[in-house]
Amino acid sequence: MELDDLTNEIIRKKSYLCVGLDIDLSKIPKNFLNFQDPIFEFAKKIIDITSKYVIAYKPNLAFFESYGSNGFKSLEKIMNYLNSNYPEIFTIADAKRGDISNSSLMYAKAYFESLGFDSITLSPYMGKDSIEPFLVFKNKFAILLALTSNDGHKDFQLYNKNDRYLYQHIIEKSQSYKNSKRLMYVVGANHISSLKNIRRIIPKSFLLIPGFGEQGGDLEKVSNAAINEKVGLIVNSSRKILYSFSKFETFDQDIENSTKKVQLKMRDILISKSIINA
Amino acid sequence: MELDDLTNEIIRKKSYLCVGLDIDLSKIPKNFLNFQDPIFEFAKKIIDITSKYVIAYKPNLAFFESYGSNGFKSLEKIMNYLNSNYPEIFTIADAKRGDISNSSLMYAKAYFESLGFDSITLSPYMGKDSIEPFLVFKNKFAILLALTSNDGHKDFQLYNKNDRYLYQHIIEKSQSYKNSKRLMYVVGANHISSLKNIRRIIPKSFLLIPGFGEQGGDLEKVSNAAINEKVGLIVNSSRKILYSFSKFETFDQDIENSTKKVQLKMRDILISKSIINA
Repeated sequence: MELDDLTNEIIRKKSYLCVGLDIDLSKIPKNFLNFQDPIFEFAKKIIDITSKYVIAYKPNLAFFESYGSNGFKSLEKIMNYLNSNYPEIFTIADAKRGDISNSSLMYAKAYFESLGFDSITLSPYMGKDSIEPFLVFKNKFAILLALTSNDGHKDFQLYNKNDRYLYQHIIEKSQSYKNSKRLMYVVGANHISSLKNIRRIIPKSFLLIPGFGEQGGDLEKVSNAAINEKVGLIVNSSRKILYSFSKFETFDQDIENSTKKVQLKMRDILISKSIINA
Repeated sequence: MELDDLTNEIIRKKSYLCVGLDIDLSKIPKNFLNFQDPIFEFAKKIIDITSKYVIAYKPNLAFFESYGSNGFKSLEKIMNYLNSNYPEIFTIADAKRGDISNSSLMYAKAYFESLGFDSITLSPYMGKDSIEPFLVFKNKFAILLALTSNDGHKDFQLYNKNDRYLYQHIIEKSQSYKNSKRLMYVVGANHISSLKNIRRIIPKSFLLIPGFGEQGGDLEKVSNAAINEKVGLIVNSSRKILYSFSKFETFDQDIENSTKKVQLKMRDILISKSIINA
C-alpha cells in the first residue's frame, strides 16, 4: 500500500482508528470455542463488524505465539482473509522485532512477503543495519518504537545527553537511514507534550498511537498535538473494542457501537481541523 | 535449569559453546529436503552430532518464522526433542522480544511454558515492566541485549550521558529489577575492552557472546576479558558449525570436527584459567 492510499482511506472512512487484534481465548464468548479455529473465527467476526469504521488492523504477535504453531496458522488465515476481502485496510504486525541484518531480512520476508503485512513494529535498539533490511520493500513500512505508553519507558527512552532524550535521537538518526520515507513511529497516547515536540522533528511521518482506551490517553488531546495535513495518525484500540460486548446475543451490535463511537469522535475531529467537510 | 546446573555442565563437558540453530533450507544438504520436515531433521542431526561438545542450543526465531506456521511447528518438535533427549543442555530462544507487560507475559508463557525454553533474548528498550514479566519464572532466564556485535550498535547503544553509555545504564538499571538474578546479557565478541568494563559492573552474571566465528571475534581474547570463577560465558557459533560440511558424504564427520575443534580450544582455556584440571 502507498502512503497516499492510507490517507485516502482515512478521508473516505472519516476515521484513523486501528483495531488491535490481541485475541485472548479466555476473554472471547465461549460460543466461538466450538469452532475448529476459534482465534480465526473471532477475528473474522470482529473484522466483518468493524471494517467500515477502521483503517487498520494490528495483530499482536505475543498473543498468536502464545498459542504456538496453531496460533501462527490462525494468523496466516487472518492475513489471508484481510488481504482477500479488505485489501484497502492497512495491516500492522505488532511484533517489535529487530536483529542483525540477515535475521532482520528473514523477519521482513516473513511478515511482508509470506504473511502479507503492510507494516511491522520494530525495536530500534540494534540500530541501522537491524532496521534498513525492512526498508528495502516497496510499499511496506517499518514502525519504530520511539516513546512507548508503558511506565517502563522512563528507564531507557528518556536517557538523555545534553537534554536530548534517547527517543529523540532515535527519531532523528533513523531519518538518515536509507528509504527513511518508509518509517513510522510508535508514540504512546499518554505523551501529549512530547507528541508536539516529536511533530517538530518529523512533521510528515505517520505515528502509531497505542494506549488510547484501556491504557488511558485522550483522543482529542492526542489529535490536537499530532494531527498533520495528511492526518498522519493511526490511533489504536485493542481491548476496549474486542471485549466491549455485554453478552453473546448482543455481540455484533455491542462491538459495532463501541467502534462507531470512536469513529464518530474522529470524524468530528477531522471536521474541526478542516481536513474533511462536515 | 538452575544456574549451577549450567556451570556443572560446562565443567563436565569442558566447553562453553552454544550452537545457534539458524537453519536456512537453501544452505543445508539437499538430501534433507526429501524429509517431510527438513528443518527438524537437519536440527536433529546437528544436535545428535554436536551434543557432547556443547552446553547450549540457540534457535533463531527469525529463521523459523520465515517458514511460517510450519517453521513454528518444526521449532516445537526441536524443543520437544531437546527436552526429551538432552534435558541437561541449556536452551535459548533467540527472539529479542519485549513489549508492554501483558504482552511480555504472553511471550514468556509461550517460550518458557509451551515451548519449554530455559531462556529467551530480550530487547530492553521498553524498560522494567517489559522485562520483569520474564523474571517471575523459576529456573528460567532473560538475556538482555546490551552491546551487540553488529555495526548498528553504535547508533543507540553508545548514546552517552556524562561518558556513561546507554548499554552500561541498561546493565546497571536492570540489576535493580525484581529477580534480577535471572538476568543474563548479550555482548558481542568484537567488544573486548568493553567486556572488561562490563565484568566490573556484573562480575557474576552469565554473558551470551555471539559474533564468534562468522562475524569475527577471537575466543581467547573474549575468554581472557570475561571469564569468571564459574566461567560465566556462553559463546555462540551458528553458521561456522551448521554449514561446515564439505559434502553430504562427510557431513557427520565434518560437523563433529568443527565443533570439537572449538571445544578443545575452550578446554585449553579452562585449564589455563585453572577452572578445570588438565
